[in-house]
Amino acid sequence: MSTPRAAVVVTGTEVLGGWVTDVNGPWLAQRLGALGVQHVSTTVVGDRPEDLRAALENARDRGLELVITSGGLGPTEDDLTTQIVAEFTGRPVALDEAVEGRIWAIVEPMSRRWKGISQEAVRAANRKQALVPDGAAILEPVGTAPGLVVPPTDDDPDRPPTPTVVVLPGPPPELQPMWRTAESHPGLLAAVRGATTLHESTLRLFGLPESELANTMRDARRAGVAVDAFEITTCMRGGELEVVSRWAPEQDADGRAFEAFVVERHGDIVFSPDGRTIDELVLDGLRGRGWTVATAESCTGGLLAGRLTKLPGSSDVVEGGIVSYSNAVKEQALGVDPALIAAHGAVSPEVAAAMAAGARERLGVDVAISTTGIAGPGGGSEEKPVGTVHVAVAGPDGGLSRHLRLPGDRDRVRELTTTAALHLLRRVIAGEHDAP
Amino acid sequence: MSTPRAAVVVTGTEVLGGWVTDVNGPWLAQRLGALGVQHVSTTVVGDRPEDLRAALENARDRGLELVITSGGLGPTEDDLTTQIVAEFTGRPVALDEAVEGRIWAIVEPMSRRWKGISQEAVRAANRKQALVPDGAAILEPVGTAPGLVVPPTDDDPDRPPTPTVVVLPGPPPELQPMWRTAESHPGLLAAVRGATTLHESTLRLFGLPESELANTMRDARRAGVAVDAFEITTCMRGGELEVVSRWAPEQDADGRAFEAFVVERHGDIVFSPDGRTIDELVLDGLRGRGWTVATAESCTGGLLAGRLTKLPGSSDVVEGGIVSYSNAVKEQALGVDPALIAAHGAVSPEVAAAMAAGARERLGVDVAISTTGIAGPGGGSEEKPVGTVHVAVAGPDGGLSRHLRLPGDRDRVRELTTTAALHLLRRVIAGEHDAP
Repeated sequence: MSTPRAAVVVTGTEVLGGWVTDVNGPWLAQRLGALGVQHVSTTVVGDRPEDLRAALENARDRGLELVITSGGLGPTEDDLTTQIVAEFTGRPVALDEAVEGRIWAIVEPMSRRWKGISQEAVRAANRKQALVPDGAAILEPVGTAPGLVVPPTDDDPDRPPTPTVVVLPGPPPELQPMWRTAESHPGLLAAVRGATTLHESTLRLFGLPESELANTMRDARRAGVAVDAFEITTCMRGGELEVVSRWAPEQDADGRAFEAFVVERHGDIVFSPDGRTIDELVLDGLRGRGWTVATAESCTGGLLAGRLTKLPGSSDVVEGGIVSYSNAVKEQALGVDPALIAAHGAVSPEVAAAMAAGARERLGVDVAISTTGIAGPGGGSEEKPVGTVHVAVAGPDGGLSRHLRLPGDRDRVRELTTTAALHLLRRVIAGEHDAP
Repeated sequence: MSTPRAAVVVTGTEVLGGWVTDVNGPWLAQRLGALGVQHVSTTVVGDRPEDLRAALENARDRGLELVITSGGLGPTEDDLTTQIVAEFTGRPVALDEAVEGRIWAIVEPMSRRWKGISQEAVRAANRKQALVPDGAAILEPVGTAPGLVVPPTDDDPDRPPTPTVVVLPGPPPELQPMWRTAESHPGLLAAVRGATTLHESTLRLFGLPESELANTMRDARRAGVAVDAFEITTCMRGGELEVVSRWAPEQDADGRAFEAFVVERHGDIVFSPDGRTIDELVLDGLRGRGWTVATAESCTGGLLAGRLTKLPGSSDVVEGGIVSYSNAVKEQALGVDPALIAAHGAVSPEVAAAMAAGARERLGVDVAISTTGIAGPGGGSEEKPVGTVHVAVAGPDGGLSRHLRLPGDRDRVRELTTTAALHLLRRVIAGEHDAP
């Protein structure tokens, strides 16, 4: 049986216009991949009915088995997804009074707190959310909007049958649990029959250009590894290279052979063979060592501390940090010798090392990381152009430092510096340090 | 003449799969809006030729005037956009030797640094990038890939004419300048003939639910303001409400009347009547006052300092900050009295005020901002649930503080806290402070 195919259609003028970043398309892409469904496209349309209709018709005309829509299920007049899907599938809508009652039970307590809005108006608006196309199954509301599984319609001999349409709300906190419910719905299972649940595996590499991985793939192929038998996606992100492989159960040996080939070829450059991010590895490593950590940041301006405290539970190991943007703060809060700054400049290996040592001592931690550099667009010189960055780590047994020349604009230099600093910290946690 | 319509088609398995966030669709959306072109959809497809072909055919069948593609112009075998667009428009490709020479002049110096790769192989790969469909115009490369403006083809009586196709590279630093060049290309101008360049105006509000703005729109309509005559998009982002209006020159009076109505109704809640962000307003305000600023962060863990240092030139006013994640750092680096923490807890108005005062004094700045709260998922209690946050500002003439109860997960609480702190700082810059 051939692999079932699906399209995602995201509605919302604010998404199409770029005011809000679509997270539903990428999230559903990952879920569809894991289900073994071929995800052919994600289309974003605004609130114009004809554009949603065109996207649905395109999926039907291509013979896709499944369409997932997100958004357009609210109570206001420009929320039209249910009506358009009903017309598209030729299924008249009717009020489902049981659903209406369940929505009202959710909305009624909230509506009492809204001032100047009549409960009648709210009730009328929410009645709209309880309209259900004939033959469609309800997915219970997570917020106030129910979702739908609308089965295929095959009653027009001049047209291909409509695909199964799963209608989901736009807010990701509502969409995600509702989709997980939909994944085991009989209507969806019927649509994706023939799909094989794929194993997904991620390698993360740091310090390798993407083009080098193309050589690795070629050499693996020559060595008899079946790299063309399953899906391998590579992606550079924030200076790291992600290699995601997806294979069916019968391709397990090929998939694992490929990953083993990459790990053998590139060694320590594969910093994560199990998909864990550098952020997770660093926090796990600090816990394993029983170490506390602090930061001393100049060019990253707080982003490194922000990364370290992003994951829940980071307060186990993160004590805090100093953002020493000015030289005065470098001197007063970190104890950097003004003569050092005068002799070498604030962007220098000497000052980076002094910042890390100062944070380690002043904040009483086991290990400290520092960043100092020229993020741009101003401040560059011939000797130290924009993108010149020094990072340093001071640990109990010594430290490490790196001189970086980073490409890109201010945001990119700050982001790449943050990632590079975490990788340097990982090395120190693993026991590396420069000769004293 | 009717408004010309355009679709954006983004190619790339890594974008479709969610490993890379698409920034080209949203960016092109804004540019098309400013040109007065109706942007009907953004479709993301992977590297399968049939999916790109289907997206192009859909645009043709809908009668759109313009399609913009991004990506698939690289030298490797899965970069197929030019070939597919050529087939779609019925225009055979030929090698453009002049273009090939110009690409080689860019690539040749780079290729000398690549080890283990033959220059012949590189040259062959780049020859592929110099293939040009018959009758198409070249957009000069910004990186190594040239773009194309492919004129409509109208030679098949059974099908609608193909739209004008503008073919752009995927990397945003290449796409953006190339599109700006394309905007004045005769081929593009012919496709978008009839478009009226729209005036775009943004109001930013803080402290108003989106539903309240719906009431404002209704009241404006009742008061005779022509709010339905032009496009108004509202969007909640990070706790702020953005109201973007776009109007044609002849709607100028209506547009301005609407904005005046919103400003009169909501007063100071409209913190930016000219589209400037809170980040810009705060930095401009600090410069106007001649003040320096520092941060004292607990739950935001560095993100507030990261926001303040995001914009170029922020080193004029930002001295630095202390990330005091642990109580020890609050006490040692900020001088918060341990008895205060013992009496009220680290998440309290008293500690927030002491953190701001400590940062102001220790870092020698005019004004300091502090954050302390429970970002979750752990650490909440009945009295102080997850989302409980205190922010405080200490300035030369006094300070302000706020107790917030924020919704959402850890990332969201940290983001909303950062934004709320910047708004509190704006009030102090404007001269507000609590009674001493």
